[in-house]
Amino acid sequence: MRTEEDAVVDEVAPWQWDEATWRGHVEHVRAGRPMLAGWPGGARVAVALSFDSDHETIPLRDGDTGPGKLSQGEYGSRVGARRILALLADRGIPATFFMPAVSALLHPDEVRRYAAEGHEVAMHGWIHERIGNLPPAEERELALRSADVLERSTGSRPVGIRTPSWDFSPATLGIIKELVLEYDSSLMADDEPYEIVQDGEPSGIVEIPVEWIRDDAVYFPMERNSALRPYASPRSVLTIWVDEFEGAYADRGLFQLTMHPHVIGHRSRMAVLTELIDHIASRRGVWFATHAQVAQHVLSHAEPPGQR
Amino acid sequence: MRTEEDAVVDEVAPWQWDEATWRGHVEHVRAGRPMLAGWPGGARVAVALSFDSDHETIPLRDGDTGPGKLSQGEYGSRVGARRILALLADRGIPATFFMPAVSALLHPDEVRRYAAEGHEVAMHGWIHERIGNLPPAEERELALRSADVLERSTGSRPVGIRTPSWDFSPATLGIIKELVLEYDSSLMADDEPYEIVQDGEPSGIVEIPVEWIRDDAVYFPMERNSALRPYASPRSVLTIWVDEFEGAYADRGLFQLTMHPHVIGHRSRMAVLTELIDHIASRRGVWFATHAQVAQHVLSHAEPPGQR
Amino acid sequence: MRTEEDAVVDEVAPWQWDEATWRGHVEHVRAGRPMLAGWPGGARVAVALSFDSDHETIPLRDGDTGPGKLSQGEYGSRVGARRILALLADRGIPATFFMPAVSALLHPDEVRRYAAEGHEVAMHGWIHERIGNLPPAEERELALRSADVLERSTGSRPVGIRTPSWDFSPATLGIIKELVLEYDSSLMADDEPYEIVQDGEPSGIVEIPVEWIRDDAVYFPMERNSALRPYASPRSVLTIWVDEFEGAYADRGLFQLTMHPHVIGHRSRMAVLTELIDHIASRRGVWFATHAQVAQHVLSHAEPPGQR
Amino acid sequence: MRTEEDAVVDEVAPWQWDEATWRGHVEHVRAGRPMLAGWPGGARVAVALSFDSDHETIPLRDGDTGPGKLSQGEYGSRVGARRILALLADRGIPATFFMPAVSALLHPDEVRRYAAEGHEVAMHGWIHERIGNLPPAEERELALRSADVLERSTGSRPVGIRTPSWDFSPATLGIIKELVLEYDSSLMADDEPYEIVQDGEPSGIVEIPVEWIRDDAVYFPMERNSALRPYASPRSVLTIWVDEFEGAYADRGLFQLTMHPHVIGHRSRMAVLTELIDHIASRRGVWFATHAQVAQHVLSHAEPPGQR
Repeated sequence: MRTEEDAVVDEVAPWQWDEATWRGHVEHVRAGRPMLAGWPGGARVAVALSFDSDHETIPLRDGDTGPGKLSQGEYGSRVGARRILALLADRGIPATFFMPAVSALLHPDEVRRYAAEGHEVAMHGWIHERIGNLPPAEERELALRSADVLERSTGSRPVGIRTPSWDFSPATLGIIKELVLEYDSSLMADDEPYEIVQDGEPSGIVEIPVEWIRDDAVYFPMERNSALRPYASPRSVLTIWVDEFEGAYADRGLFQLTMHPHVIGHRSRMAVLTELIDHIASRRGVWFATHAQVAQHVLSHAEPPGQR
Repeated sequence: MRTEEDAVVDEVAPWQWDEATWRGHVEHVRAGRPMLAGWPGGARVAVALSFDSDHETIPLRDGDTGPGKLSQGEYGSRVGARRILALLADRGIPATFFMPAVSALLHPDEVRRYAAEGHEVAMHGWIHERIGNLPPAEERELALRSADVLERSTGSRPVGIRTPSWDFSPATLGIIKELVLEYDSSLMADDEPYEIVQDGEPSGIVEIPVEWIRDDAVYFPMERNSALRPYASPRSVLTIWVDEFEGAYADRGLFQLTMHPHVIGHRSRMAVLTELIDHIASRRGVWFATHAQVAQHVLSHAEPPGQR
Repeated sequence: MRTEEDAVVDEVAPWQWDEATWRGHVEHVRAGRPMLAGWPGGARVAVALSFDSDHETIPLRDGDTGPGKLSQGEYGSRVGARRILALLADRGIPATFFMPAVSALLHPDEVRRYAAEGHEVAMHGWIHERIGNLPPAEERELALRSADVLERSTGSRPVGIRTPSWDFSPATLGIIKELVLEYDSSLMADDEPYEIVQDGEPSGIVEIPVEWIRDDAVYFPMERNSALRPYASPRSVLTIWVDEFEGAYADRGLFQLTMHPHVIGHRSRMAVLTELIDHIASRRGVWFATHAQVAQHVLSHAEPPGQR
Repeated sequence: MRTEEDAVVDEVAPWQWDEATWRGHVEHVRAGRPMLAGWPGGARVAVALSFDSDHETIPLRDGDTGPGKLSQGEYGSRVGARRILALLADRGIPATFFMPAVSALLHPDEVRRYAAEGHEVAMHGWIHERIGNLPPAEERELALRSADVLERSTGSRPVGIRTPSWDFSPATLGIIKELVLEYDSSLMADDEPYEIVQDGEPSGIVEIPVEWIRDDAVYFPMERNSALRPYASPRSVLTIWVDEFEGAYADRGLFQLTMHPHVIGHRSRMAVLTELIDHIASRRGVWFATHAQVAQHVLSHAEPPGQR
């Protein structure tokens, strides 16, 4: 009979792995050729704003069906998304809304309005499921169904994905290929777009990298039963995002930002998003673009493979 | 014999729920018609300050009966509430005090003084019990008893409730109706008052929404055995609350704030509350009101049902 | 046979306690008459600085005997205490050093120097033991032994105590009486000194209250295996402490501060302590005093019992 | 048969230890004679910048082989290390790069470039293993192998070590001696270099002390499944580091800083590192040095043993 101790002895600890093992893990999904090659019209910087319109799907995903948490999600649609759309319309700026299918089904007018006002709507899971806990077949099935929901909701097929919580399973890249998407926006190996390489093979998929630094959900959420608190004030986060933008501007690169209507949509935070946008818009040579526009631009303009 | 594994297999994960299930959860308690319709005397903004006078009931509720934690609660009554009352009297501002019944019984002079000085006293549980852990019959029995205690303590029946910790059980709305309360102040689907809708039916109950952003207990508490620390300085919280107020002012809406005498009552925090009130009072067209006054105003002035 | 379930059913939850139970807990150790009655020489404010010289006893108490954590404690004696003594000497300010007996035995020159330079040395446990986990007889035995060690180390018997981590067991007050101490400095029911009342009986012991707000160990420690991080910068903490002092100044009251040589003794924090002291010293009518001096002053000047 | 209870009774709690026990723990590895004795060319301050180039080894060490976390590590090499090298080259400043062997094997060009551009490369474990969990023989074997990898990668044998996560096992000092290293940089008993003393015996090894205060990984990381968040903004951390430097400058001492390419290498943080370096460089009498240079200087200039 095997005991727990045997199992521990059998398992090879990471410091005992042979080189093939750790190299294999590192090379499974990796950053390939850089895809930065100047912006349209000689712009100095590309600015890709995104909003993950999760709304009620976060508590639903956790089976937390009490009215309290759900009302926080409802705020995202009832108040946050409206404020965001008004601000974007006022400044004439396009953005990308990553939306779980269940959220799109709960808020059909909202998703139609995103599309009608010229924004991109892209994939963000079925119910913000935790991909890491799903069997690959379930992950695939939910993704396919989600793409169909978004197509029916907006009238056009999504061309990009951001995985829920930026999780990425061994099956994820295959699903992205099967769906013939142009880009993913869930990984973090660079500030600039790059081609994803899988086990040494260029995938043809553009990565538009995200970063926790540029995610409102890092700084502001409050979780009763954990120690998560909004200790960082919006005005201190503004200085971080301005510094990130200024770095991108100096590099003639990409400034990508991830927000959530139920997080950034509050008054004290919209004040700061407004200031950020006005700061950016005051600089010369800014190209505000959807994630799809960035991906399509770099796909057609980046230097051909075999570069770095 | 059923095993744990069977149970896991049987249980339907949220990403497997059918549409009726997730829609049912979302629609159980939901925000209905907005109830914002101008403020009395043409005021530009309503300001509803509230203080949850929990005092010793937080450690008592947790069975933490050591003198250390209890002395922190005692501070709320002995020092905090007195400072707050003095400040409100000096500025001529009414506020709402949500008070657990046990706290009212421990501090009878304090609760009488709240009422005598023109403030509202409203419901906040029996001993700050965790509603989520109670059988519905117990939740109801404690709520009824609490209403009676507050009526005896202040001479008038409470018209509103804030559930302890803003928890909201499946039984809560029914209890609110049985007690014929006018408003609840525990949910978060908007910044402005709205009518609570239950399973599609308007309830007639006004929600005066709260938000963690506007709660002192989010930023300042220190819990020895967790990682909760007062990392946010009062002065940085002041900038957040000023931004929230300025947003309400621009929207001609409601600025609602939740505080606790044992939290905000300390010198370095009262300095900031004083600055906030003086900032607000320096603007034209501010209506300082109790939560009951806000609820009664919107009930009699909001547009009739069937609006949104 | 009794099962766990029986035990749960038997146990009376706090929301089921009868009035005698919750009143009994609250009244066991409570704040009695205020002991504020003007300061010597007509001073406007009393400033009582204290340093808990725990050094290596924190990791030792936890059985964490690795060189890493111990070196952080060693820093408190080798670097922190020396810097603090130099600053106090330079500004001519007395302070109180609460020191576990094991720390005094490990650093005999340091404790002698505290006394020789005119500071108070007071009790702070044997090895910073967690009082809550000790049998009463052990708590008493360690306290008696600690008082003896401090007497031998400094040449005079301690007159005050701060319990390790401000814990306070059912046995603590009895031990304080047996040791004929004049004051305790571990509770938080007020900003000003008060008499401790036990089960309704005045104890004759002065409480010089502490507060987490005025404790450096709340803001700065880093614990590898928890989420404790020094997220609050020393300069933001300075604004809090200045506001606490200014409140005390306005109230003609007491400003009490708790620090630790291994925490505050670092360069970036000593800069802030120096600024704080210089800010305080720039005001008129400041009485810098040890905790013992404050206790002895209020004992001899406060209005007699039967006041509030 | 022994029960768990017996075990608890048998175990001697720290507050029951006899003097020999607690003294033994404290004296096992301890700070000996100070090794500060003026800097080369009469410089007022030594500035030792270090970067732990862990890259992918942190998630690998934890067996977290998903593409998400690995891409954060990849960022450290692909983006962070390049930015750091460019900044150091531009300002003409040497630094020390502590690099796990697996990281060096994954990034051979990077480690060669460190050496080629005049920086020190020093030991930092095999795969950032947790030393506290390793049998001594494994710790030794991994350390020996790591020294060989770094020697092959850079062409010269490392002379110093920083243990992964600054852990220090009972075996560590013996391994350092066996490898004939000149210095360790993992302990915290002082701000200035000192000689490590083992069980009362001077070891001849220089300690170049680190501190969490001066470590970017304390303030900025984000851990999804814990409450670690980058609540401290880079600009607030800059004020802390400037104050630490100014203290060292006033003391004519050492300013040592620990950073990580995957942490500090982001735009909003490089902005702050650049400001820090420019602030430091604006002062007179600054000696920028590698850790090895500092160790070698103090070894040859510090006053002989038998001093303090």
